[in-house]
Order: sequence, then structure tokens, then C-alpha cells
Amino acid sequence: MLTVAYLGPEHTNTHLAAQKRFGRQARYVHAPTVEDVFRLVERRQADDGVVPVENSLEGAVTHTLDRFIDFRDSPARIVGEVEVPIQHYLIAPPGVRLSQLQAVYSHPQALAQCRRWLRAHLARDIVLLEMSSTAEAVEAMVNHSRLHPAASLQHIAAIGRQEAARAHHLHASPITDDRENKTRFLMISLRRPQRGRRNKTSLLFALKDRPGALYDALTPFKRERINLSKIESRPSKQKAWEYFFFIDFTGFESEPRVQRALKALKASTTFLRVLGSYPVTR
Amino acid sequence: MLTVAYLGPEHTNTHLAAQKRFGRQARYVHAPTVEDVFRLVERRQADDGVVPVENSLEGAVTHTLDRFIDFRDSPARIVGEVEVPIQHYLIAPPGVRLSQLQAVYSHPQALAQCRRWLRAHLARDIVLLEMSSTAEAVEAMVNHSRLHPAASLQHIAAIGRQEAARAHHLHASPITDDRENKTRFLMISLRRPQRGRRNKTSLLFALKDRPGALYDALTPFKRERINLSKIESRPSKQKAWEYFFFIDFTGFESEPRVQRALKALKASTTFLRVLGSYPVTR
Repeated sequence: MLTVAYLGPEHTNTHLAAQKRFGRQARYVHAPTVEDVFRLVERRQADDGVVPVENSLEGAVTHTLDRFIDFRDSPARIVGEVEVPIQHYLIAPPGVRLSQLQAVYSHPQALAQCRRWLRAHLARDIVLLEMSSTAEAVEAMVNHSRLHPAASLQHIAAIGRQEAARAHHLHASPITDDRENKTRFLMISLRRPQRGRRNKTSLLFALKDRPGALYDALTPFKRERINLSKIESRPSKQKAWEYFFFIDFTGFESEPRVQRALKALKASTTFLRVLGSYPVTR
Repeated sequence: MLTVAYLGPEHTNTHLAAQKRFGRQARYVHAPTVEDVFRLVERRQADDGVVPVENSLEGAVTHTLDRFIDFRDSPARIVGEVEVPIQHYLIAPPGVRLSQLQAVYSHPQALAQCRRWLRAHLARDIVLLEMSSTAEAVEAMVNHSRLHPAASLQHIAAIGRQEAARAHHLHASPITDDRENKTRFLMISLRRPQRGRRNKTSLLFALKDRPGALYDALTPFKRERINLSKIESRPSKQKAWEYFFFIDFTGFESEPRVQRALKALKASTTFLRVLGSYPVTR
């Protein structure tokens, strides 16, 4: 039986993503931060880890991308991905009206995704408190007088999943938005996945400091007719305005055309690492 | 005399950036959000606006990028940029020790930039409260019993600029980090800047949905020997995993080679807009 670590506690969207992928065939362990999920995998305390990487409204989960940059020698690799539609709920104690709310607890991504709704429906001076997960936010709301220094706040709500509200017998109302809200999660592991029918490879690289370097880096993919599905840049954090690039493309690492592209790519980069090569399930 | 709107209140890093660029030759107006700065410019209540766009540690200021996407017909254009070194200070009431702190107020970007330091020096269950600016955070800390529902929090600090602490006669200690921390700000306006000795152009575009579209979009720049200094992608928010791209390159819009590149670029895009073309001062 696989042990799967996920960004917890229970009832987070990452928990849902892990269950969607591994079902009942796994033992689940929750970890308080993205960093902890990686560490559990690296220390072989979990076979697989599940972390969020991108949301369709808010973009990259920079914590996760930066973990790949900060520990770029990590043996953990991406072994798969899973996509989950996100429906946020405003979870409040019974009898509290929206206009009375003084504070909202949630994960920074959830707060950002709901910013438009919060602005339209809640007091302008509403206090937003960052929690490490949506489920943690619901827990904190329930226990705030016991656990939390902000004990004087009378009317607090949380943004989280309906399941988290149900677990505490709380009322949950959907936060509606006409925009498509999905989160993409990565599976990380020390195992190497088998090549599937359709595959994806994720790269991390840094470009040589010269004109046209990005174009030159993409040329091998064009030449080998490999389709890039995604490009993302993040600051190197070592020198201002220097970047690492994350690229996803269709194909498996062992394919000859991919091998040729990677070899050619090396000439334009100062750093290059395959973060993972894995079958695409959807 | 120019009227310059900036993301305020006084003593924010954006205020510093505005002063660095416009000096004493301007009348300054502060606005509570990035959105308000754009609106003051669009309604001709300010000649120029100053907003943060990128930090060397935390990356893109997504609020600002998304404003360009959400209001992509805005007449406001980028007319210049300015870079400011960032030094954050922990600002606390006299006699409060780090270990006693229960909450820290600041702008989400400042909280993110200091996350490593906060984790190393403060209690693990520290509450982080998002404010609309660093200066607002200092104000809120000073006035929290009056203004703020989190009145029971006894020991609160803020992360902000030293000038904000000085204005309130508070102690400020630098938050040290060995990484280079700079923020880049944009000047926006309805005026069209003159071509300078060295220039930069900023584009926003969406790619046609076909293999190799990004490579094809970059090809005209390579052909015209135009150097890209920056690429950033943001979710379209209309359809999951569709993106808008922000590109900066050296050159002025009216140059024939730039005109040719833009004309060629149109063939790979479903949307294309020049966000601005302006002299580079540094």
C-alpha cells in the first residue's frame, strides 16, 4: 500500500486531489506545508506527495515552484499531475450575517481567488488572515477563542471546502464567480514512472545572459516538433532580474526526439534539470 | 506642476519610487489600491501614476499585471519605470520582545519577502495580517485598538519602511536577508513619452491555440535582432490554462524594425496591445 503525503489537514483541496488520484489504495498522511510534503518524500517517509502548482485564476503557486528552485538537487521528481475544480465556500458560525463579519481566515490563494467576491459582499475594512490551508482556516475559526490570539474578534468566517464545514456541523454557502476555477496539483516521488500513451515532461532551467537566449532555448523544441504546453518564469533570488524558467512539453524523457532537444537546450542554459517525465491521465 | 498618484499612504516603497522619479517637481496624491492609482490617471485626476510591478525575490506583482489584462482597453500607458532597493524593517512598540509577538501586519508582498526571516525569528503560530500597504500596516499597528477589530492582540508588529516608524517615533530594526531585494515600479499616464537614447517597449498579448505559437511569436523579435528583457505569463481567467503574455523588449514603438516585428507578431496572436514605449533611465 502506498503512503501519500499531502498539504493538509484533512478536507483541503490538496486532500481531494490526492484522493482523486490514489483513491482507497493509499494510506494518507497530511503535512502542514509544501516544504513538509517534499521532505516526507525525500526522507522516504512517504512514497508520493501531492502539492498544488497552479490555479486557473491566480496563476502559479509560487511556494511550490520556488521549492524546486531552492532545492534543485532534490531527488524528488514530478511523477504525475491531477486537476481539481475548485468551489470555495464561506463557512461561518450559525446566525452570523455577512455584514457583521470582521475577519475571514483562509489560505492566501483562496483569499486571492475570492478577492472580488469579498470586496463586493463584505465590509471594506474586513481583516484577512492567512492560514496555511483552507482546512486549517476552518479549524482556526472553530477554535479561535482557544487557539488563536485574535480572540476578541466576534464574527469570523473561513473560506474552505464544504466537507470541512460538514465535519464541524457549520453552514457553508458557495462563493460564486463566473470564472473557471481549477487547481492543478503535482505528484512528487522518488520512483520513476513508466512511459504512458500520452506523456509530459517538466523542465527547470536558467538561461545564459545573452540576447535571444530564450528564443534559442525554444528552438530545439520547434525543430523536434515538440509542443510546449506551459512556460513560467520565477526570480533567481540570487541576482535581481535574473530568472529560472519552468517549461512543460508533451513527450517522454527517453524518446529520441526529447533526448535531442534536451541536448541542444544545454547549449543555451547555465542550469538544466528534468523535474519529471510522466504519463498524462486526462 | 505634475500631479502624481501613488500606492499610498505616505512612506510606502511606492511613495519612495515616485519621489525618486519626480522629486520636488510634483504634487503627490496617494491612493489606497493599485486600481485607484489607475483610475486617478484614467480620469485625468492625476497626470502620472506609480505602481509596483515586480520584486526581485517574490516576482510579479500580479495585482498590477492583472489590471492590464482586466482593463485592456484602458487609455493609460506605461511611460517609464523606476527601480528601488527594498529594506524592510520590523516596527514594534517599545519594550516588546520578538518572542512576545502574536501578529505581524504588512502588505502581502512584504510578508512574502520576509517569510524566511519571520519563520526563523518569530513564534510558529504568528498571525500574519494582510494590509493594503506597508505604511497602512504601521498605521494599523499604532491605532489598532481604535481602528481594528483585532483589538485583543497585545503584541503586534508591522513590516514597513524606516520612515514610517520615524513618523510615529517607533523602533525599527532591519530585517536582514542576504538576497538582493529590489522592486521595479511602473509610471503610467495618458501622455506619450518622447523617444530617448535607450528605450523599452512593453506588450500584452494572447496566443493562438496551436502548437509552437510561443516560438512563432518570438521569431519576429529574433529576426529583427530585438532583445527581449522579460517574459511573464498570467492566466486569462476566462478559460483554464489559457494565458496572457507580458513581454518587454529594447526599442521604441516608432522604430521601423519594431513596427515590422509587431506586424509579424499579430499573425500568432488573438490579442495584441502595446502597453507602452518609453525611455530607460538607468
